[in-house]
Amino acid sequence: MKMNEKEVLKKLLKGEIKLYEVDKYLSADKATKVRRKFIEEVTGTKLEHVSKYTIDMENALRKNIENSIGAVQIPLGVAGPLKINGEYAKGEFYVPLATSEGALVASINRGCSAITESGGAKTRIIGDKMTRAPVIKTKSVVEAVKLKKWIEDNFDRLKAAAESTTRHGKLIKIDPILIVGNYVFPRFVFTTGDSMGMNMVTIATEEALKILENETNAHVVSLSGNVCTDKKPAAINLIEGRGKSVVAEVTVPRDIVKNKLKTTPKSIVEVNMAKNFVGSAIAGSMGFNAHYANMIGALFLATGQDEAQIVEGSLGITVAEENEDGDLYFSVTLPDVPLATVGGGTGLETAQECLSIMGVKGSNKVQKFAEIMAGVVLAGELSLMAALGAGHLARAHKELGRG
Amino acid sequence: MKMNEKEVLKKLLKGEIKLYEVDKYLSADKATKVRRKFIEEVTGTKLEHVSKYTIDMENALRKNIENSIGAVQIPLGVAGPLKINGEYAKGEFYVPLATSEGALVASINRGCSAITESGGAKTRIIGDKMTRAPVIKTKSVVEAVKLKKWIEDNFDRLKAAAESTTRHGKLIKIDPILIVGNYVFPRFVFTTGDSMGMNMVTIATEEALKILENETNAHVVSLSGNVCTDKKPAAINLIEGRGKSVVAEVTVPRDIVKNKLKTTPKSIVEVNMAKNFVGSAIAGSMGFNAHYANMIGALFLATGQDEAQIVEGSLGITVAEENEDGDLYFSVTLPDVPLATVGGGTGLETAQECLSIMGVKGSNKVQKFAEIMAGVVLAGELSLMAALGAGHLARAHKELGRG
Amino acid sequence: MKMNEKEVLKKLLKGEIKLYEVDKYLSADKATKVRRKFIEEVTGTKLEHVSKYTIDMENALRKNIENSIGAVQIPLGVAGPLKINGEYAKGEFYVPLATSEGALVASINRGCSAITESGGAKTRIIGDKMTRAPVIKTKSVVEAVKLKKWIEDNFDRLKAAAESTTRHGKLIKIDPILIVGNYVFPRFVFTTGDSMGMNMVTIATEEALKILENETNAHVVSLSGNVCTDKKPAAINLIEGRGKSVVAEVTVPRDIVKNKLKTTPKSIVEVNMAKNFVGSAIAGSMGFNAHYANMIGALFLATGQDEAQIVEGSLGITVAEENEDGDLYFSVTLPDVPLATVGGGTGLETAQECLSIMGVKGSNKVQKFAEIMAGVVLAGELSLMAALGAGHLARAHKELGRG
Amino acid sequence: MKMNEKEVLKKLLKGEIKLYEVDKYLSADKATKVRRKFIEEVTGTKLEHVSKYTIDMENALRKNIENSIGAVQIPLGVAGPLKINGEYAKGEFYVPLATSEGALVASINRGCSAITESGGAKTRIIGDKMTRAPVIKTKSVVEAVKLKKWIEDNFDRLKAAAESTTRHGKLIKIDPILIVGNYVFPRFVFTTGDSMGMNMVTIATEEALKILENETNAHVVSLSGNVCTDKKPAAINLIEGRGKSVVAEVTVPRDIVKNKLKTTPKSIVEVNMAKNFVGSAIAGSMGFNAHYANMIGALFLATGQDEAQIVEGSLGITVAEENEDGDLYFSVTLPDVPLATVGGGTGLETAQECLSIMGVKGSNKVQKFAEIMAGVVLAGELSLMAALGAGHLARAHKELGRG
Repeated sequence: MKMNEKEVLKKLLKGEIKLYEVDKYLSADKATKVRRKFIEEVTGTKLEHVSKYTIDMENALRKNIENSIGAVQIPLGVAGPLKINGEYAKGEFYVPLATSEGALVASINRGCSAITESGGAKTRIIGDKMTRAPVIKTKSVVEAVKLKKWIEDNFDRLKAAAESTTRHGKLIKIDPILIVGNYVFPRFVFTTGDSMGMNMVTIATEEALKILENETNAHVVSLSGNVCTDKKPAAINLIEGRGKSVVAEVTVPRDIVKNKLKTTPKSIVEVNMAKNFVGSAIAGSMGFNAHYANMIGALFLATGQDEAQIVEGSLGITVAEENEDGDLYFSVTLPDVPLATVGGGTGLETAQECLSIMGVKGSNKVQKFAEIMAGVVLAGELSLMAALGAGHLARAHKELGRG
Repeated sequence: MKMNEKEVLKKLLKGEIKLYEVDKYLSADKATKVRRKFIEEVTGTKLEHVSKYTIDMENALRKNIENSIGAVQIPLGVAGPLKINGEYAKGEFYVPLATSEGALVASINRGCSAITESGGAKTRIIGDKMTRAPVIKTKSVVEAVKLKKWIEDNFDRLKAAAESTTRHGKLIKIDPILIVGNYVFPRFVFTTGDSMGMNMVTIATEEALKILENETNAHVVSLSGNVCTDKKPAAINLIEGRGKSVVAEVTVPRDIVKNKLKTTPKSIVEVNMAKNFVGSAIAGSMGFNAHYANMIGALFLATGQDEAQIVEGSLGITVAEENEDGDLYFSVTLPDVPLATVGGGTGLETAQECLSIMGVKGSNKVQKFAEIMAGVVLAGELSLMAALGAGHLARAHKELGRG
Repeated sequence: MKMNEKEVLKKLLKGEIKLYEVDKYLSADKATKVRRKFIEEVTGTKLEHVSKYTIDMENALRKNIENSIGAVQIPLGVAGPLKINGEYAKGEFYVPLATSEGALVASINRGCSAITESGGAKTRIIGDKMTRAPVIKTKSVVEAVKLKKWIEDNFDRLKAAAESTTRHGKLIKIDPILIVGNYVFPRFVFTTGDSMGMNMVTIATEEALKILENETNAHVVSLSGNVCTDKKPAAINLIEGRGKSVVAEVTVPRDIVKNKLKTTPKSIVEVNMAKNFVGSAIAGSMGFNAHYANMIGALFLATGQDEAQIVEGSLGITVAEENEDGDLYFSVTLPDVPLATVGGGTGLETAQECLSIMGVKGSNKVQKFAEIMAGVVLAGELSLMAALGAGHLARAHKELGRG
Repeated sequence: MKMNEKEVLKKLLKGEIKLYEVDKYLSADKATKVRRKFIEEVTGTKLEHVSKYTIDMENALRKNIENSIGAVQIPLGVAGPLKINGEYAKGEFYVPLATSEGALVASINRGCSAITESGGAKTRIIGDKMTRAPVIKTKSVVEAVKLKKWIEDNFDRLKAAAESTTRHGKLIKIDPILIVGNYVFPRFVFTTGDSMGMNMVTIATEEALKILENETNAHVVSLSGNVCTDKKPAAINLIEGRGKSVVAEVTVPRDIVKNKLKTTPKSIVEVNMAKNFVGSAIAGSMGFNAHYANMIGALFLATGQDEAQIVEGSLGITVAEENEDGDLYFSVTLPDVPLATVGGGTGLETAQECLSIMGVKGSNKVQKFAEIMAGVVLAGELSLMAALGAGHLARAHKELGRG
């Protein structure tokens, strides 16, 4: 059936069709417009700005959104140059940051400046994987133990099945295989190329499980058993890593700490001990850092990463030490940052541009991106820790008029 | 000194001025444009889409961003209607969701439909506060104990000082006051009206600490001691709550589970036990849920919340039970969701529009918003749990062509 | 019916009576003997040493054990003198330690010596309470919120009921009252005098709950809802404290560190950072210390404390700093050590003697005992950290021939 | 120099010799006596019962204790018969339990009875290892990554060195090797035969580290870096396992639940959900069980295990389900129970006798012991959960007059 915008809107308002059915009758932009009109009408609001998008909505409706009514705009700033001496990222980078938290970009920028002046951040990727762990139920722990062995014995076949569903995903191990009572949680560990890979490994794992279900009596209760662990804070990710696991570090000469960061290595070390270790320990926290999530968040929004995985990026440990020369050694360790340069939201036009700024758009770039990401977290963490050491936190917010 | 865009760009390129100094010479939009040009030039990229913003950049530069080069666009969809029977939110709502994760809005929408058909979600706010906990160092545990007593004895004065800095913030208690060795971590607990309040309470706490520093020998190591705990997962937030603590629940008749969610109450209960409890427990997770962060994230981006606090929204516990009539009782408990209807990113034009859709723009609306938020989490959680129970997770992603 | 030992044994062997029924027919020592004979016979073992007890078995059968067959012996050593400058414990103490772990007493003794030579340990009790948190189920979160309010409104009556069951227990607050979905977990917080108090507060809480069950529709699912949290590691205990919460600290002059502990303040600080903070953080541990459980364990066994609560004593944070004079500041913070000087196993003859050694037998002594306990943990922790700093851990075990 | 008891005591009292030096002059029993006399004199106490030991003190002074003054006695009860259908333990067992917590043995005994009547507990060992993880510091993350690779590349040599120090210990892997900033934490994983193995692996790891220190620039900060994790609660142990990881399960027919346990499968399932899952989750606990530590503790004391490792035994997850026939499926999963049948305190005379009762004294018995241990935990957990379900917890304590 053919209908024009007006007719579709009418039917929507009458309740004769549903919001998602609009796409059957209208092209992407028109469908978006009609849904927006509908929402304007039934909620009595005016939706002007969300209508001013330039992204390709047809594409977005295929990959990123349903029931589209437009787009939101998040302010985009830039920090840098940030010098990185990584294995993949080498040179100076400008970093796009999307946020609405005043003072954040300025603070990261200050950190970039201190790091670059100190000769740059060293970065290393210490882990790279994406995981999916279903939960499988057996009749008894006796069966659970057998199932674990079955999985180990049939790894090659499970691998073949899993990899048949994907060009880029490789099943590198199924480990650990946890048993709780009669439940079994095999953690499927993949490399996923330049994709973040969550959906890739979900589909691949499901394919592998078909063999398992056919050949054993086991019952797959859920394709995800939370041992993955996706989008929730979890010690298993802290320990085993997930997404990109990356370390960035810098040695900041004491003069730069003094002149640029307005404090001393000793103060930063003191804050790190008191806040990031003692405070986090007594609070029962998994984040032994000041604010990794701020940097991860701003970078994720700029580059079209999955916003819910900011959660995982909040895990990690900051180390600060005054070395024998009185300079500051400062490092951030991020065990769990799911990251992509292709797929998901990275294909959105603004994300593509932001990835381009860093030279990490497209294939074979995700390691480089991961190292830059760690450098950015280092910059923001260093800057805030220095501000806290100097007693400047509230002042920064006041001066910038945030609140 | 007066300069036009060209001159400023030239100076930027020569390194004679810094990115943030551009604002001294040019109006907001021009400064944004010049910085963008600069980035285009030095990184060899074309920044077309990020230039297509309609938000008021002058305003944003005062409150939300520094070194602006434009804005990113995140696709915006809508789910609903979602019926809420809350204390503040009553009626049916459409919910704006900004995300690039395909299938998410569709999944939430399905949950909304099941809930609304079941008569709606009951919601209750079980806590409402914003916290800041400095770390203070004393000479000895003997002094630490005295300082704790001093804080308790001088609560009224500290409260007066704190509240002198804010119209809306009220210091309701300083509790707990944790001692570790010679460190003291007093947790300042405020109500903050319709603001999220993090900056408000930071400034207020700093003011209170001035009295403390003047009258005791204690040394404030850091205005934030991570016992707050802001933007990191922490058990103290799970237990004591932070931001809005909200519960949403629904009883879904078994027929609706069957017809709309394509599974059974029993299956959902089974998945909840195996995944959200057993799986989360053995993974050392703080999130006893399937994916709160997805809903929190999409709603946060739509409405201008602080993206880094998605971290805190990932905490919480899902309960699923089959009741005596064979129907499904399903609840989500979110102990820690910082939320605002005024201040921060909520003032951005697209955020304002999204808040309007739900009728929660401006003052005296944050409780209503909190209840809708919990309802949305309930909808998304219910839908995914049902999909897992029905064995549909990977299929949903495949059908929607996500990857 | 009257029977002699032989007759009872015969019936036991025939399966005509059960092990616990032996007490009906025979006095404590005879019953113990007959059960032992029975076990010897059916398992073909010789139980000589377990028969050589001197404790009053009649008393023990009333209070401490069922189905007695004798007693085990645990070697008892002594460390000290340990100088304590506490609020309750002042002076030098010898400390009884029951353990079978070679090198432990020697190591603690070395720590005592270093502390005493340094002028003693300062100790302070920072919390004192025993808790029981039932889990109560309501029909809905709406009811759960009402129940929470009901509990708050009826605190005085609940307190009167609770305290009617005990001479020494005082209900000081019901806080927090946690809500998860339709569940409510009110944490009943008592002071319990010189008893550890777990059973006291269980009985008192049950009495209070009778009122609640009579006057509300709520269903008490379980008298303990694990929010207590008894005998399991839990962040709530780390944060809120449980049992005695105590800090002990000492400043050890660098010469004593060097001559007595064979290392430097710097090394100990380095080990503390690397092991107790960084290592514990990345391992997802709640114990930011080296081995509190060793000292807690040995002291608990010596003095008749509840061995399962060694679990709670393992929580806590060690702080080590080199101060401006180059001396070592070292502290232990124990948030959760349930402790008694009366009741439970403290009445056993050997426990009474061990409590006497420290001058903490009987009433009004438990605070003093708590401070000595913290001093002992300080001594053991300091000694092991020094040994690790000096690279002596394995050597100590080898020299002492342990394995 | 030769001295008799009197002379040694005199010197002790004058401070001319130290407590541990007494062993130079006197045989074990005499030295013990003199130290006891000394303590009696300086503390004004009478130490009668601690003097009544029958264990071989000479042996104990070599292996288990220093500064001996005697022994403490812990009441010993027995529970059973407990039927186990394990891989190693098959048949009915009586279980020795040393405790001073009244009602515990009776409660465990009731659980044994229910299990045995239900056909016995199935048990399986799901992991078996002992671990030691040093913390090593490098100059930079760049070096840390190289060191990790070096360790992987030199595994065979490290293994040879480690195993050169022990007959029974086998280094099976070094995994994970965690990196935090410039720190490296390689987790050395051994099998240790019938020993608990903590000291064995400490010595072996130290030997392996000599090669590492000789051939790399790395600095071993501490032989233990808390990633082991010994005697502290830690998620890494929950996930990776440590000591014996064991599951025990039973299906209890609903009639037995009703008649013997005085409750219903439904009630037990309800308590397990509300308490062990929801309660533990919201309390931030690592113990998703009711009281594993009680059973572990009583069995550890009876059999000479390391009391401080009761901490580790408190971790674990209880699963309870009502199956299709209305019967109760009930399991306990214990990921982390260090256990021995030889070495350490197991050589003490009373421990030997207790091990004999279960038929697990000496070599090649530790797996059997591990399965019995899990069965005992199952029995105690089942019994308490049933009591809670029936509302009998406080009553049990009152009737047995405990407090």
